[in-house]
Amino acid sequence: MRQIEIVLEPKPKGFHLITTEVLRKIGTLPETGILHLFIKHTSAGLTINENADPDVLKDMDTVLNKLVPENLPYLLHTMEGPDDMPAHVKASLLGQSVSIPVTNGRLNLGVWQGIYLGEFRYDGGARRLVATVME
Amino acid sequence: MRQIEIVLEPKPKGFHLITTEVLRKIGTLPETGILHLFIKHTSAGLTINENADPDVLKDMDTVLNKLVPENLPYLLHTMEGPDDMPAHVKASLLGQSVSIPVTNGRLNLGVWQGIYLGEFRYDGGARRLVATVME
Amino acid sequence: MRQIEIVLEPKPKGFHLITTEVLRKIGTLPETGILHLFIKHTSAGLTINENADPDVLKDMDTVLNKLVPENLPYLLHTMEGPDDMPAHVKASLLGQSVSIPVTNGRLNLGVWQGIYLGEFRYDGGARRLVATVME
Repeated sequence: MRQIEIVLEPKPKGFHLITTEVLRKIGTLPETGILHLFIKHTSAGLTINENADPDVLKDMDTVLNKLVPENLPYLLHTMEGPDDMPAHVKASLLGQSVSIPVTNGRLNLGVWQGIYLGEFRYDGGARRLVATVME
Repeated sequence: MRQIEIVLEPKPKGFHLITTEVLRKIGTLPETGILHLFIKHTSAGLTINENADPDVLKDMDTVLNKLVPENLPYLLHTMEGPDDMPAHVKASLLGQSVSIPVTNGRLNLGVWQGIYLGEFRYDGGARRLVATVME
Repeated sequence: MRQIEIVLEPKPKGFHLITTEVLRKIGTLPETGILHLFIKHTSAGLTINENADPDVLKDMDTVLNKLVPENLPYLLHTMEGPDDMPAHVKASLLGQSVSIPVTNGRLNLGVWQGIYLGEFRYDGGARRLVATVME
């Protein structure tokens, strides 16, 4: 089992394909295994989704903003700004980790699948991941 | 670590119990381990939920359709049909993988738990999973 | 791979930090690995979120109750009470497992991250987890 920490370049609020950035930092994958990616933050999440049309990334952000809007009048945790508590909820809806099979030394993703960072804060800064390669 | 690809029979839009279909294709499980199932698609998802009352499967589909309805006027990614972009969102809300402990050679699920395929397209076709058995 | 079952003390409906309770029952962690926690129930879930402000726990519960309210008129599975079917939906939105990297013998969580139980029933009782330590 091999483990490294990855620091992602800061990204604006929204969804971002990070497959290439992550794979470049991980290096060689085993013949057969699982890649586990974990995000060490509570206002961003990881998921896997469509890697071809950038509009999917935009629509994902729009729909999540509609599901969990800012300035809901009943929220208590508001001192870190209007984007903070919605970010916590979205982070738990999306999840903090993805685990992807590795087959023949490559991620065994579907043709249309890529790894997404869901950045839910306007100024989230550099996000830290832990990558664990199991074989 | 053992890995196989599983092709599920095509299923209509909605939620479907796939525990039996999946286990039949995987074969013998180790004494102690984890079964990791990954779906190689972006408009279907995997989860674990109630295995007894078929109405739960129907209600899951109904509630998700209300959360992420078709024909939202602000969507950009609409060229693949009205069910496509909602399917992408639902796929990320549900998740692309489940991992289940294996104990004494069997899935260590709760009494009422079964593995669900969430099929979010009307004509999703045969869905491909990767099963990885870790021990 | 080491595996134990953990029984959590009964908790009221809402979100609860369980990091300490879980770690106490698991004992020593390996130098490098993954801790996998799985909940054997269909009306409660696991996630990772903010460990500092108790208002986040309350807001998480409030927002999920708004997303999936009780007494939706179109639900079919109602015989187990108005909190039951919403609990099933929330369980699948949140997820049934978390997997967390272990680094230098400790959970490699972010500074602000803790493990949450999402208890979606008013009287869920003691909840059973399976903890699997991979190394």
